[in-house]
Amino acid sequence: MSITEHHPAPTAHAAPTPAELGIGARLSLHPMTDGFVPVILGALRAAARPEVEVVTDDVSTFVRGAEHHVVAYLLDAISAAAASGAHVVAHVHLSRGCPGEVACTVDDAILRRPVTLGPLPRSHHAASAHWALYPLDDGDADRRGDHMAGIFAAIEHARSLGVVTGSEHFVTRLDGDLADVLGAVAQGWLLVGQRVRHVVSHATISLGSPSASAAGAR
Amino acid sequence: MSITEHHPAPTAHAAPTPAELGIGARLSLHPMTDGFVPVILGALRAAARPEVEVVTDDVSTFVRGAEHHVVAYLLDAISAAAASGAHVVAHVHLSRGCPGEVACTVDDAILRRPVTLGPLPRSHHAASAHWALYPLDDGDADRRGDHMAGIFAAIEHARSLGVVTGSEHFVTRLDGDLADVLGAVAQGWLLVGQRVRHVVSHATISLGSPSASAAGAR
Repeated sequence: MSITEHHPAPTAHAAPTPAELGIGARLSLHPMTDGFVPVILGALRAAARPEVEVVTDDVSTFVRGAEHHVVAYLLDAISAAAASGAHVVAHVHLSRGCPGEVACTVDDAILRRPVTLGPLPRSHHAASAHWALYPLDDGDADRRGDHMAGIFAAIEHARSLGVVTGSEHFVTRLDGDLADVLGAVAQGWLLVGQRVRHVVSHATISLGSPSASAAGAR
Repeated sequence: MSITEHHPAPTAHAAPTPAELGIGARLSLHPMTDGFVPVILGALRAAARPEVEVVTDDVSTFVRGAEHHVVAYLLDAISAAAASGAHVVAHVHLSRGCPGEVACTVDDAILRRPVTLGPLPRSHHAASAHWALYPLDDGDADRRGDHMAGIFAAIEHARSLGVVTGSEHFVTRLDGDLADVLGAVAQGWLLVGQRVRHVVSHATISLGSPSASAAGAR
């Protein structure tokens, strides 16, 4: 092979940005305490890093970046809020594939490439979550869609991680260290993203609930 | 036409139950105050009515019943929590079509029948929401799915109701009286339910936010 220093190698081509791929999250943090404002602002500040774009409004916080950076941000922000000692509920909304109301035009091979998350550091915060996953599978030229197939595959994957503790109406229940729960949610989302162009996941994650303490370990 | 009193009229046939149609909601209420427990429990108690089945666990509350009863329950519960004067965020998750992890077998003509909500009484609580709708449109024998078509139709409908105030990443912003915001979310969900067998909607609804007050009326 000839020397190619005058031409960029294929791997040096500019990869599509998270914005082009429609990758990101919305986070809402709900510390159930009179002093909720400093807990929320402190948590978002503690998680800030140059690799993610963060825009906070009065309802939720938008986070954009490569998948592993977004997940690391979410883990740090929720952990910091939980460290306040208050009962905290976080709502996490992950999306990939269709930025906003714009139709997707990105090539399948790029959009559906495998993405893996590195291991997440243990948070030492016990979390209980209600998790839902939406593979928006319209099918393709050769086949109808089958959104339930993606849901089942993601639940099986979460089960293999040991965090699935129940099947409730409309959601799957996950319990474990926050890192394991959030990891299962994100991995299920990425797993289905390999076969469906537009995948969204929602998780309501509860930490430090007095109801959970009263009920004992679940 | 002959007298038919010896045969039940078609309308007297047992209608499918909300459980059979997979219709219901999950609600999580987050009052940002040290006294959050009585606010949550009081709000759920204030909204209770015989027409809905309610199951509360440590993460969220499951509500099942006919659509208009479920929506009335949600409106009453969120209003009661907001009446505490605390900053309250509610997360509402509406679903119809696929009960839990079970595949849908209900006939299309029944599942996709038009359902209308009566007008909701004004709550006198200003609400700001981030709203997402997921028509899980796998297509049918004759066509591919097109989930974005349902989303666009529901947003247009909400716009006609005057509550759409912005288009954010992954969500549509709604502002207005809680009844109008919740009504637009539920009507969009039911509108799309007439063409897609499995439709889910999520809304993060904020009331009494100090950020919103600081930013002035939006």
